[in-house]
Amino acid sequence: MPLMTTDDLKDFLGREFPQVKNDFVIEEVRDMGIRVRLKVEDRHLRPGGTVSGPTMFSLADVTVYLAILAMIGPKALAVTTNCSIDFMRKPASGTDLVADCTLLKLGKVLAVGDVLLHSEGVAAPVAHATLTYSIPPGQ
Amino acid sequence: MPLMTTDDLKDFLGREFPQVKNDFVIEEVRDMGIRVRLKVEDRHLRPGGTVSGPTMFSLADVTVYLAILAMIGPKALAVTTNCSIDFMRKPASGTDLVADCTLLKLGKVLAVGDVLLHSEGVAAPVAHATLTYSIPPGQ
Amino acid sequence: MPLMTTDDLKDFLGREFPQVKNDFVIEEVRDMGIRVRLKVEDRHLRPGGTVSGPTMFSLADVTVYLAILAMIGPKALAVTTNCSIDFMRKPASGTDLVADCTLLKLGKVLAVGDVLLHSEGVAAPVAHATLTYSIPPGQ
Amino acid sequence: MPLMTTDDLKDFLGREFPQVKNDFVIEEVRDMGIRVRLKVEDRHLRPGGTVSGPTMFSLADVTVYLAILAMIGPKALAVTTNCSIDFMRKPASGTDLVADCTLLKLGKVLAVGDVLLHSEGVAAPVAHATLTYSIPPGQ
Repeated sequence: MPLMTTDDLKDFLGREFPQVKNDFVIEEVRDMGIRVRLKVEDRHLRPGGTVSGPTMFSLADVTVYLAILAMIGPKALAVTTNCSIDFMRKPASGTDLVADCTLLKLGKVLAVGDVLLHSEGVAAPVAHATLTYSIPPGQ
Repeated sequence: MPLMTTDDLKDFLGREFPQVKNDFVIEEVRDMGIRVRLKVEDRHLRPGGTVSGPTMFSLADVTVYLAILAMIGPKALAVTTNCSIDFMRKPASGTDLVADCTLLKLGKVLAVGDVLLHSEGVAAPVAHATLTYSIPPGQ
Repeated sequence: MPLMTTDDLKDFLGREFPQVKNDFVIEEVRDMGIRVRLKVEDRHLRPGGTVSGPTMFSLADVTVYLAILAMIGPKALAVTTNCSIDFMRKPASGTDLVADCTLLKLGKVLAVGDVLLHSEGVAAPVAHATLTYSIPPGQ
Repeated sequence: MPLMTTDDLKDFLGREFPQVKNDFVIEEVRDMGIRVRLKVEDRHLRPGGTVSGPTMFSLADVTVYLAILAMIGPKALAVTTNCSIDFMRKPASGTDLVADCTLLKLGKVLAVGDVLLHSEGVAAPVAHATLTYSIPPGQ
């Protein structure tokens, strides 16, 4: 079961990553999973009005990170070692993006999270990512 | 909805890939998804008795291929362009492997499938893969 | 051989992506390859002073995009369909990042680029990425 | 510098993986890199006469494994945790496949290898893979 609540994660994000804390809303924390919403702003957009690739990568990365922390507690040092991301559809214009993460593995050394991203209110996913985090020993 | 049934897919596999048709059992075909079981034999094993990495890759690859065919009909020429696979746990010794695929995208040119592999009767996944297939035009 | 020079690419970047044009310096264009430098600014950094993961993703993505355009000419519509990125070392603090891309495939429909990222003046790579771009027909 | 020679690696392969030892020829061992040739046999082929995807995966996997062992010595327990592979061209029919691996990282816990596969005598690569191996502690 999670060791941190949505409020715990929000406090952690505000303390450790003040520059992005207002971008993300933690919507749900569950066993081995989490849902995070990106509040889309102009700076997240490409010409044409859709969310940029780096913004989607960033949302997927943060979501898996918070899913891991929710389970192991507020240890800031887990680092991404690999990400494979498929961009499948154009996000809806001017619409928040929602990321839903399931942790497939939470080992002592490595954790693997699977994330689906979709535009709020649209079922078809815009992107899918799988990320591996390395968890340093002794944390 | 699928254009091919489990029996259609079985016939197709036997006709086009006679050398592997007895390795795989198509357990379920549904809209945008499929479940396939690998009947584990000695030749699929590593020293130590667990299923080898190439065998898991092969199961994931066949499963996405059949999921695509089930939806678009028996067109043999779709080809894998990318696979990202995470090996997360050792498969259970001497146990069949089950692959569950969901198609995340089925476009005119590219299809993307997500696959979870687990040892039969064990919930924790042994591997997770995402594959992209290119669908040649005019098929 | 490339159809665009470093100056052509610089003009294109300034016209199509004005918001990031000052971040990137196109250092070299060669047959099926390109080298791009990211001028690291505070907004690219994580707490601790190293370049963030999304910034590295962004550099890899832009570099492959420009390598493709250099070969096929200024067609703005190629889109990333897949990226696999390995983060291997911490970037040097406060140091520009250099991305070196080799195009492994430049087909009519898909292009694949391989990118190594390293901190300027440091040989060991900080990250490695492989990206696939889809090239829309009729461009 | 490597701790094992081509002969050391050949002996190791014959001892630990007798079922595949005759498939692979270790052509060159160098610092942080290796070149391995797959002697293509009928069982490696798809209908149509080209090398199958699982065979290419297998070659890439073995090549990175042997590149790691060459550097750290004969420790059989390193395991693949992730592979991302791009299939880019059809291999030449009835021709051996050559895999060239460069280790991008050789850490205490994780190693990352980059592999290019091409048909012998043909410059354009047929596939490109990046693999991560986990190296168990205390080996």
